[in-house]
Amino acid sequence: MIIGIGAGDPDQVTVQAVRALNRADVFFVLTKGDEKQDLVDVRREILRRHVARPAYRIVEARDPDRDRTADRYAEAVADWRRRRADVYERLIRDELPAGGCGAFLVWGDPALYDSTLGIVDELLARGTVPFEYTVFPGVSSVSTLAAGHRIGLNRVGRPFQVTTGRRLAADGWPPGVDDVVVMLDAQCAFAGFADQRTHIYWGAYLGTPDEILISGPVAEVADRIRAARRAARDRKGWIMDTYLLRRGAGDGQ
Amino acid sequence: MIIGIGAGDPDQVTVQAVRALNRADVFFVLTKGDEKQDLVDVRREILRRHVARPAYRIVEARDPDRDRTADRYAEAVADWRRRRADVYERLIRDELPAGGCGAFLVWGDPALYDSTLGIVDELLARGTVPFEYTVFPGVSSVSTLAAGHRIGLNRVGRPFQVTTGRRLAADGWPPGVDDVVVMLDAQCAFAGFADQRTHIYWGAYLGTPDEILISGPVAEVADRIRAARRAARDRKGWIMDTYLLRRGAGDGQ
Repeated sequence: MIIGIGAGDPDQVTVQAVRALNRADVFFVLTKGDEKQDLVDVRREILRRHVARPAYRIVEARDPDRDRTADRYAEAVADWRRRRADVYERLIRDELPAGGCGAFLVWGDPALYDSTLGIVDELLARGTVPFEYTVFPGVSSVSTLAAGHRIGLNRVGRPFQVTTGRRLAADGWPPGVDDVVVMLDAQCAFAGFADQRTHIYWGAYLGTPDEILISGPVAEVADRIRAARRAARDRKGWIMDTYLLRRGAGDGQ
Repeated sequence: MIIGIGAGDPDQVTVQAVRALNRADVFFVLTKGDEKQDLVDVRREILRRHVARPAYRIVEARDPDRDRTADRYAEAVADWRRRRADVYERLIRDELPAGGCGAFLVWGDPALYDSTLGIVDELLARGTVPFEYTVFPGVSSVSTLAAGHRIGLNRVGRPFQVTTGRRLAADGWPPGVDDVVVMLDAQCAFAGFADQRTHIYWGAYLGTPDEILISGPVAEVADRIRAARRAARDRKGWIMDTYLLRRGAGDGQ
């Protein structure tokens, strides 16, 4: 099972996901190194709080690092996915009892800029460890961002785009939309749109006690966001943030 | 409180939302007429299943109809919103005890093509019934669609757009993206993209026992979707569906 567990609040899992968690024999938790121990802890807390069965097994494995210096983004990601699929293959083959049910816990919603589904597809295509699986959707960080700011992602009858910081920095403002949700932006690409007409609704550690929300015209709040981002990352060792850019704010949310 | 309750499965509410439901004194349920009694019933079932307090009050009100024949979409929606704000104002003024807590239950996620946040903004701007409110995000129909098809909404490092059927029919394929999520499409605008390169992942009544999922090249499945849509709407009296169009499917989900 691939289970979306929400953006960070252990109570942001759905009742449906809680039922699924209670059917699993083994939980696979992929760790990315000490700096993200917090994130492992939240997953353990979700299980502690919501799994009623007395004994369950958690198997941790080291998630391979992605080569973030590579030029070709898609290829670097594909290579990373292959190495991650190797890890998943080993976990399912060696740690899952025959006929047993394993669960991968995914932050937010598995459909949104998460690689788990792609890895599982690759693993099934290999045919080395046959299995069946179900996907449980979760509350995404994007929905949590919007709820925190109490805004809609779209304006009435209008489209919006979801993209990455890398893409926004490389290609500029996307054509045909005035509302852009940006994920995975380590470079603060929003700073390139520092005018009074463009509002940003930014959030980090969404749904957790460390949640930070900042909004306003990019021209006015970009420096504040950068400073808050740097300070938080220095303090915690990691940051997860996302934001909405809204051009011509004011007309008809 | 404005509470996202998921796409249709009464267990798709989050544990956080369940806690919020248990703090409410009054639940406001807006009805759209007999044909959507099913939808009222699911909300009642959510409360029956998840609210532990012995006595709670449900206040139903008739949701004003939108003029779907009007030429100017945005104006028709704005007028509809004003009339709905009148209803909300009356509900809060007349049905909510002083210092009490009221809850509006919203399908899916309140941030996604839902008018409740806009109505509440308008009501607060009037200043006639002052109140404070919190928004709880929910699992969207879009996430439920993706989970049902076990696909991601984006492909690796690439953007996607979310738009309406009306917009897709009027403006054609949006520039700059190969993945388009379409909501509120009563006209089957997907049929305009009936080629072998474009795949559709369609779903109706997502997360419910009536869920229908169909996917494939638009050229091959468009007629099947139209027939399934018509038959289901005739049988149930209403339909809620959404879909993803994916151009050049196959390359790197």
